[in-house]
Amino acid sequence: MNKKLDVEPPLGLSERFERGDLFAAPCPSREVLNHVCSRWGVLILIALRGGTHRFSELRRKMGGVSEKMLAQSLQALARDGFVSRVSHPVVPPFVEYSLTPLGEEVAEKVVDLADWIELNLSRVMDAREEIEADHAIGRSGR
Amino acid sequence: MNKKLDVEPPLGLSERFERGDLFAAPCPSREVLNHVCSRWGVLILIALRGGTHRFSELRRKMGGVSEKMLAQSLQALARDGFVSRVSHPVVPPFVEYSLTPLGEEVAEKVVDLADWIELNLSRVMDAREEIEADHAIGRSGR
Repeated sequence: MNKKLDVEPPLGLSERFERGDLFAAPCPSREVLNHVCSRWGVLILIALRGGTHRFSELRRKMGGVSEKMLAQSLQALARDGFVSRVSHPVVPPFVEYSLTPLGEEVAEKVVDLADWIELNLSRVMDAREEIEADHAIGRSGR
Repeated sequence: MNKKLDVEPPLGLSERFERGDLFAAPCPSREVLNHVCSRWGVLILIALRGGTHRFSELRRKMGGVSEKMLAQSLQALARDGFVSRVSHPVVPPFVEYSLTPLGEEVAEKVVDLADWIELNLSRVMDAREEIEADHAIGRSGR
């Protein structure tokens, strides 16, 4: 695609990946996308954009997440360099999570998308109703 | 959250959902996010942003997608009103997919995020290597 050729990657970075390609099955960009775009990944990034959180605070904020899923999602985002984890060995011990500078950058894009979805949910619901009504008419043979 | 209170939803929309809330487990915004953010959902939105595609064209472009997964992902995006489907009853018959105006809007946000991931993949890979090296040092007890 021409689009890929005229965009320069940021300077000083590894040359192994001039640019990822989500359309190529073996490209690791797909895995990164999955971590960032998973249901819990999105909510973690949005929550941490508001500041450092303890594990228990994140869990309380994110309706319906299990301890295991939250831990796994945090680990994936930490492995990608988006989230940093600081453990405080006091009594009782606690762990704090925050965004790295790389995480701040990707979170900005995720928040833009999440905001769009939250703000436009009623339009999506209206479209769904219309489409379902059309299908119902089709099925009844009118 | 205060942020939610001072953002007005677009005018003239259904009042059932003043604004979705991804942090609330029962909110349908989570389902919409999943459709839009799924591996194949993202690639469909990016591909259709370049224009109308036949099913077979989409399948060729999207490395590794099965016929079933592509059909399911297209159906989910069509049900949400993001993708329109036109079938041409000629011989042999074919079906064309394109973005609706609503789909164009959400695709713009998805493309911003996908572009960031593709462009910054080398930074993520570098961060991963560094983190793995740190863990290895931790494990070896140095």
